[in-house]
Amino acid sequence: MGNKLTKRSEDYSKWYNDLVVNADLAENSGVRGCMVIKPYGYAIWEKMQAELDRMFKETGHQNAYFPLFIPKSYFSKEASHVDGFAKECAVVTHYRLKNAEDGSGIIVDPDAKLEEELIVRPTSETIIWDTYKKWVQSYRDLPLLINQWANVVRWEMRTRLFLRTAEFLWQEGHTAHATKEEAIAEAEQMMNVYADFAENYMAMPVVKGVKSENERFAGALETYCIEAMMQDGKALQAGTSHFLGQNFAKAFDVKFTSNEGKQEYVWATSWGVSTRLIGALIMTHSDDNGLVLPPNLAPIQVVIVPIHKTKEQLDLITEKVSIIIKDLKLKGISVKFDSRTTQSPGWKFAEYELKGVPVRIAIGPRDLENGTLEIARRDTLEKKVIFINETVLYVEALLKEIQESLFLKAKHYRDSHITEVSTFDEFKRVLETKGGFVSAHWDGSKETEEKIKELTKATIRCIPLNTDIQSGFCVYSGKESAQKVLFAKAY
Amino acid sequence: MGNKLTKRSEDYSKWYNDLVVNADLAENSGVRGCMVIKPYGYAIWEKMQAELDRMFKETGHQNAYFPLFIPKSYFSKEASHVDGFAKECAVVTHYRLKNAEDGSGIIVDPDAKLEEELIVRPTSETIIWDTYKKWVQSYRDLPLLINQWANVVRWEMRTRLFLRTAEFLWQEGHTAHATKEEAIAEAEQMMNVYADFAENYMAMPVVKGVKSENERFAGALETYCIEAMMQDGKALQAGTSHFLGQNFAKAFDVKFTSNEGKQEYVWATSWGVSTRLIGALIMTHSDDNGLVLPPNLAPIQVVIVPIHKTKEQLDLITEKVSIIIKDLKLKGISVKFDSRTTQSPGWKFAEYELKGVPVRIAIGPRDLENGTLEIARRDTLEKKVIFINETVLYVEALLKEIQESLFLKAKHYRDSHITEVSTFDEFKRVLETKGGFVSAHWDGSKETEEKIKELTKATIRCIPLNTDIQSGFCVYSGKESAQKVLFAKAY
Repeated sequence: MGNKLTKRSEDYSKWYNDLVVNADLAENSGVRGCMVIKPYGYAIWEKMQAELDRMFKETGHQNAYFPLFIPKSYFSKEASHVDGFAKECAVVTHYRLKNAEDGSGIIVDPDAKLEEELIVRPTSETIIWDTYKKWVQSYRDLPLLINQWANVVRWEMRTRLFLRTAEFLWQEGHTAHATKEEAIAEAEQMMNVYADFAENYMAMPVVKGVKSENERFAGALETYCIEAMMQDGKALQAGTSHFLGQNFAKAFDVKFTSNEGKQEYVWATSWGVSTRLIGALIMTHSDDNGLVLPPNLAPIQVVIVPIHKTKEQLDLITEKVSIIIKDLKLKGISVKFDSRTTQSPGWKFAEYELKGVPVRIAIGPRDLENGTLEIARRDTLEKKVIFINETVLYVEALLKEIQESLFLKAKHYRDSHITEVSTFDEFKRVLETKGGFVSAHWDGSKETEEKIKELTKATIRCIPLNTDIQSGFCVYSGKESAQKVLFAKAY
Repeated sequence: MGNKLTKRSEDYSKWYNDLVVNADLAENSGVRGCMVIKPYGYAIWEKMQAELDRMFKETGHQNAYFPLFIPKSYFSKEASHVDGFAKECAVVTHYRLKNAEDGSGIIVDPDAKLEEELIVRPTSETIIWDTYKKWVQSYRDLPLLINQWANVVRWEMRTRLFLRTAEFLWQEGHTAHATKEEAIAEAEQMMNVYADFAENYMAMPVVKGVKSENERFAGALETYCIEAMMQDGKALQAGTSHFLGQNFAKAFDVKFTSNEGKQEYVWATSWGVSTRLIGALIMTHSDDNGLVLPPNLAPIQVVIVPIHKTKEQLDLITEKVSIIIKDLKLKGISVKFDSRTTQSPGWKFAEYELKGVPVRIAIGPRDLENGTLEIARRDTLEKKVIFINETVLYVEALLKEIQESLFLKAKHYRDSHITEVSTFDEFKRVLETKGGFVSAHWDGSKETEEKIKELTKATIRCIPLNTDIQSGFCVYSGKESAQKVLFAKAY
């Protein structure tokens, strides 16, 4: 291996950072907390975007674009929202620079001060609901099913590539409905869309649930979420979908004339996932040799490396390989043939292992004689020699198998890291020794939730949906509990 | 017609604005100079993005993402660039808001002042070349062929939807090369890609050329451009591609070890098109009835409107139509069946005319009896009755014909609005009466160019490439001129 990855067992956090940088996914920029997403990392984001965008459109949503800047006063209109979002943010106060009179360089022109400061959007509910006011008059204008792909900025003090950055890329859906029931159904639908994407494309199993009041989005009546489990036993919130009630409609005075001719406030949802998903993808599957990417999101699904000494050998291999490439592409499989002569086959093997390409094909003069080639799968590192004419069918099946196998492996890990506990001692011991989700009864109070967080650093990741609901007694207070909830330390 | 568009002949500028708003393309937001791109307008941008992105990838480029914010000092590093870009811009000076102590609301926290102000990117050369410094060591790292899809902000005083807004969406390509020749070839290639896109997708003829020194991008040695002609006789710069020489490499100290082991500065290009293209698209084809969209970029290519009185009639029509829809979709044609009963057929006709849907199909009970339907094309407003079983082939051919016909019509208009002049009186008269491009000899001096601009408001749109180059005498100064150039009033 040419790269120098820290081992996960040595320093998980350093392993993650090394991997993001060495696999050419992203790096820190000269701007505090802002990352550069490098082409290989961005290609993964493009694959994610394409699938999500398709799923959003299939569920009736359209894309639009709203301003980057939000006037400061907009944030004050929704009381709980301002506390949650308008604090740590980038504030635009001026609109001009000028040359300093003393020739010392360029300075902010004090004469170009904005009357009202503009906030770089940390999320767009306020500017969007200010717009919806103009779009909604009658029940005929509803539902409004809109999504935006955008950059947002939250001034984070401690940042980590993909997981927590000051600027990040995301999508934010913002919908408006005539009834409460329809809005709740929408919020639930989008949680399900996210879960479908996480499991079937990212091969990352998730628990669907709702947040406790404490952990809810600022301004939401209910926050639906999908929670994933990383290899270090910490949970990661992978997507959220909020039922916002009529809070934003009231704050921005968005009413409609109902079917019965009455004036009513509109019901709202919002939902989003971000480039954070790339961090989740990395931490779900990758190993000490580098990235492991699920075929459904891998920018390159198959790489072909020729093994040769002479130019004649390379020409023969190239000829043979060009047919395979054509056939693979016809099946919609993305292939890269790396015939560079500036790098050795060994260097290339290490490189594509680091970059998590699911399937590697190696072919040399001896293979040509035998009509064979060697196929290696990235997830298990297993190699197999097959006949050349079997390649397309074999690769097609192998990509499906890898996708499924990655999901099952991650699911096995996740399932074995949900531990039911019934005492607080057990709770603490499991958290400290094994990590993962701790499933425990909770009395439903904010006080207990905060006390547990203070004592263990674990938060309620979600109150799971679709589970056997059994009542019991709170693991901390001993009070009555309606159902078990999932606690964990989290990213 | 239900909409109230101002006629072009009455007030072209108002016609444009009415059209953008009434056709649901975009609207002004509560934030000065920033627009909301509505779903229908954004759908056109998505079609543009998809084609351009494909063309960029086919020419070897990859996408990446760089920070929204640029430290103020970065702009000072390239001398001409700072004057061109760092003046009218959004400046972030603080990173926190807080509740005012007097309870008057939220205010900027004076303790959260940034040490160095951040500029919201007006263009990304500086932050990208600061990054390339880390990516380029050897000739093996070159070329770097990178594109970014992003939002940018330029604090414009007078804004117009799509044409000139404080925030706009665009793509910016930034490439790094080992040799001057390669960089120039890249800049020319991208101008050609833009021209191809403009002509074959937007159906908008363009003149390819280079800018005069005055009109060049700040920091460029050569600016290649494509210039289009709008229906009011004003020119519109539709895309630019810059050969930046070694200016940014020197400013950010980006060197590489050449094949021969020497340390050399890298050669650069940058190129971009923006949501301004939507404005160009509108002004090239649309008429007093509304938008006219070329089929290759129309979000909806075919709309089907049922003509019915009873539910039974609608059911019969729906059954018949569902087969047509399926067959059209198989051909990759996007179809909308508008079976809403809340709106009349007449209302729908006007709506889709306003929205520029290229082909409209109407079908009623009488048609079903006769096995026919009515097809109307948006560009010429011609209608024709055809047999139902001919529909798919007919529509397929018609979409091609409309695409071609729109281009030829626009080309005819453009060609008839390039007027060769040999005296300055003629120059002024043509500009005032006919408008369009004025092709005239120019002595190549900045002084003459500025004087002509001062006297006529016309600028040199480009020095055309690929034309018969004939020398002559400057239309203004009478001095020697190497070739004719194109002047026009411009957006």
